[in-house]
Amino acid sequence: MKRLVLRRSGLDGLVLETAPIPTIGRHDLLVRMTAASLNRRDLLIVRGEYGSFPLPLVPVSDGVGKVVAAGSAVTRFAIGDRASPAYVPDWVAGAPRDDLVRRRLGGPLDGVLSEYVLVNEHAAVRPPVHLDDVQAATLPIAGVTAFHVLFADGRIVPGDVVVVRGTGGVATMATLLARQAGARVIALSRSRPKLHRMLALGAHEAIDVSEEPAWDARVRELTGGAGAELVIDLVGGQDVDRCVAACRIGGAVALVGFAAGTVAPVDLVAAMRRMVVLRGVSVGSRASYEGLVRAMEHGRLVPVVDAVHPWTDAAAALATMDRDEHLGKIALSFAR
Amino acid sequence: MKRLVLRRSGLDGLVLETAPIPTIGRHDLLVRMTAASLNRRDLLIVRGEYGSFPLPLVPVSDGVGKVVAAGSAVTRFAIGDRASPAYVPDWVAGAPRDDLVRRRLGGPLDGVLSEYVLVNEHAAVRPPVHLDDVQAATLPIAGVTAFHVLFADGRIVPGDVVVVRGTGGVATMATLLARQAGARVIALSRSRPKLHRMLALGAHEAIDVSEEPAWDARVRELTGGAGAELVIDLVGGQDVDRCVAACRIGGAVALVGFAAGTVAPVDLVAAMRRMVVLRGVSVGSRASYEGLVRAMEHGRLVPVVDAVHPWTDAAAALATMDRDEHLGKIALSFAR
Amino acid sequence: MKRLVLRRSGLDGLVLETAPIPTIGRHDLLVRMTAASLNRRDLLIVRGEYGSFPLPLVPVSDGVGKVVAAGSAVTRFAIGDRASPAYVPDWVAGAPRDDLVRRRLGGPLDGVLSEYVLVNEHAAVRPPVHLDDVQAATLPIAGVTAFHVLFADGRIVPGDVVVVRGTGGVATMATLLARQAGARVIALSRSRPKLHRMLALGAHEAIDVSEEPAWDARVRELTGGAGAELVIDLVGGQDVDRCVAACRIGGAVALVGFAAGTVAPVDLVAAMRRMVVLRGVSVGSRASYEGLVRAMEHGRLVPVVDAVHPWTDAAAALATMDRDEHLGKIALSFAR
Amino acid sequence: MKRLVLRRSGLDGLVLETAPIPTIGRHDLLVRMTAASLNRRDLLIVRGEYGSFPLPLVPVSDGVGKVVAAGSAVTRFAIGDRASPAYVPDWVAGAPRDDLVRRRLGGPLDGVLSEYVLVNEHAAVRPPVHLDDVQAATLPIAGVTAFHVLFADGRIVPGDVVVVRGTGGVATMATLLARQAGARVIALSRSRPKLHRMLALGAHEAIDVSEEPAWDARVRELTGGAGAELVIDLVGGQDVDRCVAACRIGGAVALVGFAAGTVAPVDLVAAMRRMVVLRGVSVGSRASYEGLVRAMEHGRLVPVVDAVHPWTDAAAALATMDRDEHLGKIALSFAR
Repeated sequence: MKRLVLRRSGLDGLVLETAPIPTIGRHDLLVRMTAASLNRRDLLIVRGEYGSFPLPLVPVSDGVGKVVAAGSAVTRFAIGDRASPAYVPDWVAGAPRDDLVRRRLGGPLDGVLSEYVLVNEHAAVRPPVHLDDVQAATLPIAGVTAFHVLFADGRIVPGDVVVVRGTGGVATMATLLARQAGARVIALSRSRPKLHRMLALGAHEAIDVSEEPAWDARVRELTGGAGAELVIDLVGGQDVDRCVAACRIGGAVALVGFAAGTVAPVDLVAAMRRMVVLRGVSVGSRASYEGLVRAMEHGRLVPVVDAVHPWTDAAAALATMDRDEHLGKIALSFAR
Repeated sequence: MKRLVLRRSGLDGLVLETAPIPTIGRHDLLVRMTAASLNRRDLLIVRGEYGSFPLPLVPVSDGVGKVVAAGSAVTRFAIGDRASPAYVPDWVAGAPRDDLVRRRLGGPLDGVLSEYVLVNEHAAVRPPVHLDDVQAATLPIAGVTAFHVLFADGRIVPGDVVVVRGTGGVATMATLLARQAGARVIALSRSRPKLHRMLALGAHEAIDVSEEPAWDARVRELTGGAGAELVIDLVGGQDVDRCVAACRIGGAVALVGFAAGTVAPVDLVAAMRRMVVLRGVSVGSRASYEGLVRAMEHGRLVPVVDAVHPWTDAAAALATMDRDEHLGKIALSFAR
Repeated sequence: MKRLVLRRSGLDGLVLETAPIPTIGRHDLLVRMTAASLNRRDLLIVRGEYGSFPLPLVPVSDGVGKVVAAGSAVTRFAIGDRASPAYVPDWVAGAPRDDLVRRRLGGPLDGVLSEYVLVNEHAAVRPPVHLDDVQAATLPIAGVTAFHVLFADGRIVPGDVVVVRGTGGVATMATLLARQAGARVIALSRSRPKLHRMLALGAHEAIDVSEEPAWDARVRELTGGAGAELVIDLVGGQDVDRCVAACRIGGAVALVGFAAGTVAPVDLVAAMRRMVVLRGVSVGSRASYEGLVRAMEHGRLVPVVDAVHPWTDAAAALATMDRDEHLGKIALSFAR
Repeated sequence: MKRLVLRRSGLDGLVLETAPIPTIGRHDLLVRMTAASLNRRDLLIVRGEYGSFPLPLVPVSDGVGKVVAAGSAVTRFAIGDRASPAYVPDWVAGAPRDDLVRRRLGGPLDGVLSEYVLVNEHAAVRPPVHLDDVQAATLPIAGVTAFHVLFADGRIVPGDVVVVRGTGGVATMATLLARQAGARVIALSRSRPKLHRMLALGAHEAIDVSEEPAWDARVRELTGGAGAELVIDLVGGQDVDRCVAACRIGGAVALVGFAAGTVAPVDLVAAMRRMVVLRGVSVGSRASYEGLVRAMEHGRLVPVVDAVHPWTDAAAALATMDRDEHLGKIALSFAR
């Protein structure tokens, strides 16, 4: 079989090579990959800017495929089923714990840029039946993170105000899910065309932060002075303090991204006075993934796919992430 | 002013009498009532079948009116505002506690069948702006209970399955709210016409329990064998055990009514094996009331009003509750 | 190796037989058992009174042993470590779910009455370092259930009142843990000597229910009229209603046993008025087991072992459970 | 009666003046103050460094006294009872909300440096019976905040590790309460004598941060690499990032103080990777105050009083806060 291996840091360190199809254990599924999708984490790992994982490494965590063989003890899947490996295979459910979240696909564990992938049946999830493989392949990080932020860490109630700061995969999924849950969604972006697309996706209001840099005041104004129950921040940097200021008393900020800066100067007095919670979030459990699938199936939600590249062009596809022109997810197809 | 006073137990113990308009304290609102609504509790109290409250008593807890005077220290309302008294005036927020839930309108405290009612500003809520007074008057018990069951005790997530056993005020509001929150709603009734109305209201599926007395098996079948996350039981009696059996592992039954019997024989082994939670619920806090208002305003939800009677005909209106022919709420109007 | 196999229902259906030592998979531990303990569930299963598991079956779920061999991929344990298999091997953490709680040791899965047992490393827990093997072998069901009831489903706060109705393994562990958490513990029993031992164990008060059959009134009296935050009911039957009546407004009853009757007639009006939660509980997750170990190590808690029998005398040991004379756990030793 | 009034910002702006005893409303208590205690907030308010409250203002929020008169409708207290006003009078229970937390004693509302104080009966709490007035007067902010952090926002389980960064009122109370709840407490200070006193108070371990500036590594070392469940940070500034690094995966930092700096540069990548929650906290509800009283009474906990000054020397007492030599609370007595 073919697979893409990161031999040395850098986009040109990705090498297509031939490897034997792995042999399955008693609880393993052998999955023939059909689609994958990219996350910023993948780009940082390939560049060597995200921790230091031992190379060579098969990168990229998110994908979907078909079960072509199953170990003798497998009960959760049958040959022919679609399956998607959970990004954090040991985190079955409940609160995150050190021993459960250490192993992750795409680094330190090998990822999915491989024609065949071995997945323990307990770390595999059935994708939503109404989605094609490319759409389904966008869920393991972005969809699960959005679901986890909205429904596992906190829980959104109809009428709650959710501010979404960003327009990538988590942001678009969070918009779909928050709207499904009856929340009022306010989208933030510095791109007017992207805001139009967020509104079309279901956001109730949009704030162009290039025109309204003090957007926290605008959020309070839109909410009668109260502020938002939840700000999902995919951007980070200086404006994390505006996220706090945009929250209602007792509100929450989900810290999910850091494109604008990895260090946020937090005004402690403001956080204390507003009794705001800041939650560092990176993805969720298999239970959150399965909850996401069920919610999406019930609501027939369709994730936003910005572009699809052949999987062997992963380096080129990763390169497009930096331009920041996409909305939603960049996907890869294994179709021949 | 006129008011209806229960002089002795029985529908014929309700007497229309004249009383002085009450004088307001520093934090009081004087509310001129415009609408009220009935709950089964009111009928039981009037009949003397619900605890033993000292008479005379002005019955009925749920209503809406207009603020016509306000104490010198009042800051939360202005003259001319619409206001609805919270059924449990001291339960501002948080978990129920003995000292917070003891005082309740319509018994032991005087209720709203009175042209003018005195309400502490901290025990008053602003009704949803998109509802007329009669619609708004149906919320203090039925709407708040439905909201509390769905979003305060537990919290529904999109794709969750909610079974609603009953077709009264709590049942219709729970159907509207659960659907708003992205849940899948299964309605139960022994009346086919009522089930059609529940489907029209937003229920996704309906089970005619007169045709399928083993309705718990049908719920499991509809949910691929798993069962429901939440069963809201407005009926009680022998079938509480079916509520448990209709739950998924780790699911919950909200015990909200007992029309079919006040004693439920619970199979402990089933409850333990399914790890099911049974929650006794009677209404919610002012925070739940305000959450309800916000959710309804955001979703433009309209409660189901079955009939409207003149408030002075409260005895006749209460008598109609027993026929069990209504769907949704029976209301009273103070219009002249 | 030797093992005890249930060939047909009944204590005399337990047969000591020879079987090959199982071969280990990549993630398996081979554990040489050193101690086990009994639960009422084991007795019911052996008698054929608990569901219908296919025979032959190696019974009994709770045990401890030493790792004597480990699969090639094992990282969580090393040869020589002590290990205890989790009673519900797939329930790693979080809320219970159908697919996680179906497989259980001692039925339908083979249990621990075997010289060697195969355990997946992810389903094994390190026993508390300060306990000997017999003590540690009492924890997988009784200790985990007590921990789960107190700290996972609900959470006890210092000063909370916990009523413990029963004197077996869960009851004694719950008393130790609730006291450790700063709660005030009230023990119930119809045996005065057992109550003395519960007081010695850490209970703050004791009620002899043979002298005070209306013990719920006594609980309210002891708590200034308020009632208990939590009643842990190991007995079931008619008095479940007293558990509800002994709770404070918003309190909880953990339904964990049914020795006095599997059907409890629950007064719905009382449950609703007191807004009480009844939780069916059967054990907890691996995370609860690990939480239990940590709590016990920190507090140097020692479980109560009533008697130790040779493991090959399991039938005789099970027979003693019916006499209801023990306090705490009945254990088995594999010592030669 | 005499009272201390802040006429202009600055310690010398505190003026002792004579004022009429206030007249009570229907639900008011007239409380003759016997003791008070100081918080850093009081010092900042007097100096004009904490928001901008309209002057003149009676400062200081925390106190205890005796009910000498009660309004006609009062049911919760009787003349002769001890009573302590809640610092946030409208926050009865539940989550904080804008309209509930705006009014606070000692600014913007008048505080307790007054021989007589008017308190609504619903905003008053009965102090622990085993404490004298000076001890009890230290609880409304420091004790309630410690209780809220440990048991309302999150909930500590026996064996959890709690790091306390600071040695003031919240820190000493948190140490007492966390130990009562079975947690393992690690105290941080740059003063060796203070650490000895924290150990005497119940802390299990102490870290001298002047000797170990990388104290987060030491916390991880003490916890076998895992880190703490909860870091209560009373200091703020640059080391907030160490609080995050000292947490276990999924742990929490309570942001309660900012003596070392009001702006904390937070490493978003670390917060996300460790999935840490940072909670801005300022005090808790009346329910938390009452929970605190119950816990302290059950455990006979005694708060740490560093010094007692005559109430008319409040300016001098406030001045001592800056020296940072105290451990626990600085109190005021109204004794003649």
